[in-house]
Amino acid sequence: MKKGIFLSLEGPDGSGKSTQIKYILDFFESRGYETVLTREPGGTSIGEKIRDVILDNENSEMDPMTETMLYAASRAQHVAQVIRPALEAGKVVICDRFVDSSIAYQGFGRDLGDCVAYINEYAIMGCVPDITFLMKLAPEEGIGRIGSGEKDRLESEEISFHRKVYEGYEYLERTYPDRIIGIDASRGIEEIKAEIQKQLEKLIEKK
Amino acid sequence: MKKGIFLSLEGPDGSGKSTQIKYILDFFESRGYETVLTREPGGTSIGEKIRDVILDNENSEMDPMTETMLYAASRAQHVAQVIRPALEAGKVVICDRFVDSSIAYQGFGRDLGDCVAYINEYAIMGCVPDITFLMKLAPEEGIGRIGSGEKDRLESEEISFHRKVYEGYEYLERTYPDRIIGIDASRGIEEIKAEIQKQLEKLIEKK
Repeated sequence: MKKGIFLSLEGPDGSGKSTQIKYILDFFESRGYETVLTREPGGTSIGEKIRDVILDNENSEMDPMTETMLYAASRAQHVAQVIRPALEAGKVVICDRFVDSSIAYQGFGRDLGDCVAYINEYAIMGCVPDITFLMKLAPEEGIGRIGSGEKDRLESEEISFHRKVYEGYEYLERTYPDRIIGIDASRGIEEIKAEIQKQLEKLIEKK
Repeated sequence: MKKGIFLSLEGPDGSGKSTQIKYILDFFESRGYETVLTREPGGTSIGEKIRDVILDNENSEMDPMTETMLYAASRAQHVAQVIRPALEAGKVVICDRFVDSSIAYQGFGRDLGDCVAYINEYAIMGCVPDITFLMKLAPEEGIGRIGSGEKDRLESEEISFHRKVYEGYEYLERTYPDRIIGIDASRGIEEIKAEIQKQLEKLIEKK
């Protein structure tokens, strides 16, 4: 059924995902592959509406389980309408964040645990990336802007939240070593690019 | 934890749910109970926004799994923000449609099967009604307006959909005989009211 190649990128904002996505697109397009670049949450018009609901309420009373279900709803639509048809047509699909984000942010960050993975199995129905690049950046480095002074409750909470998210990603990396490639994102762009190139060459050889 | 009484009403539109809900409210209020009347989908401001997404797209490309997840998201919020707090405060909560609707409409009507129940277990987290009145009306009777002439493809499809929903409700009634009370909704209002009254008296005796 699945004839194309499915790649996802994970990691905190500011970890250089966008730069590497551009490189990955170039890599495949220069080799004659048809590519589809997409992102989560969103990726479809229904998904964008769901995204608006999530963001609209981000500071309100939204229950963590509601948030998880909304991300899963958006993902189910994304898989059915965009990702699966593109893969069946033999295209390369590059997705900026996918199911691992939910497990890291809601499962670990919001302490919902295993249920996030179970719920998302129904959203993706076996549509798992062939390879996932995890841009790894220590949470302290990611939130470097806050500085070293006294932190208020909210800032501290945010750091502890991002630490839990980071632990979630490390858990996923250990659990799915064949799929998830951890990339040290504290290095220079060219060094990261070279590592990703090596992995992509291995991937298309296997296909 | 749960001190109140949780009732839900199920069955197709036009089966007389609203009339009986008014009667159930009167029953409890005249006996000094505090009541909360709520409905699904919706019941919270976040839930109403999710409802808008569901309805906004009802004729479009929405995937059945997306629809299921959106209903579950709305329900998770409804349970966390309205139903559970009211029950913990000892109130009587009367909900117009709850989890059984998802199982009947998405699980059976849209052929998604068991996964609808699994997903919804995470949405309700053990918050199951004490009693559910299922207003039973044969699908043909419910869609009586269509008449007996030649039916176009859409009308036929709708009847077969409503037949599957009805089978879903019958499955639930067989599976949860202690919770779900099937009510023959083809009878007169007073007859139905008398049956519901008998059940409510049994319920408050047990509490």
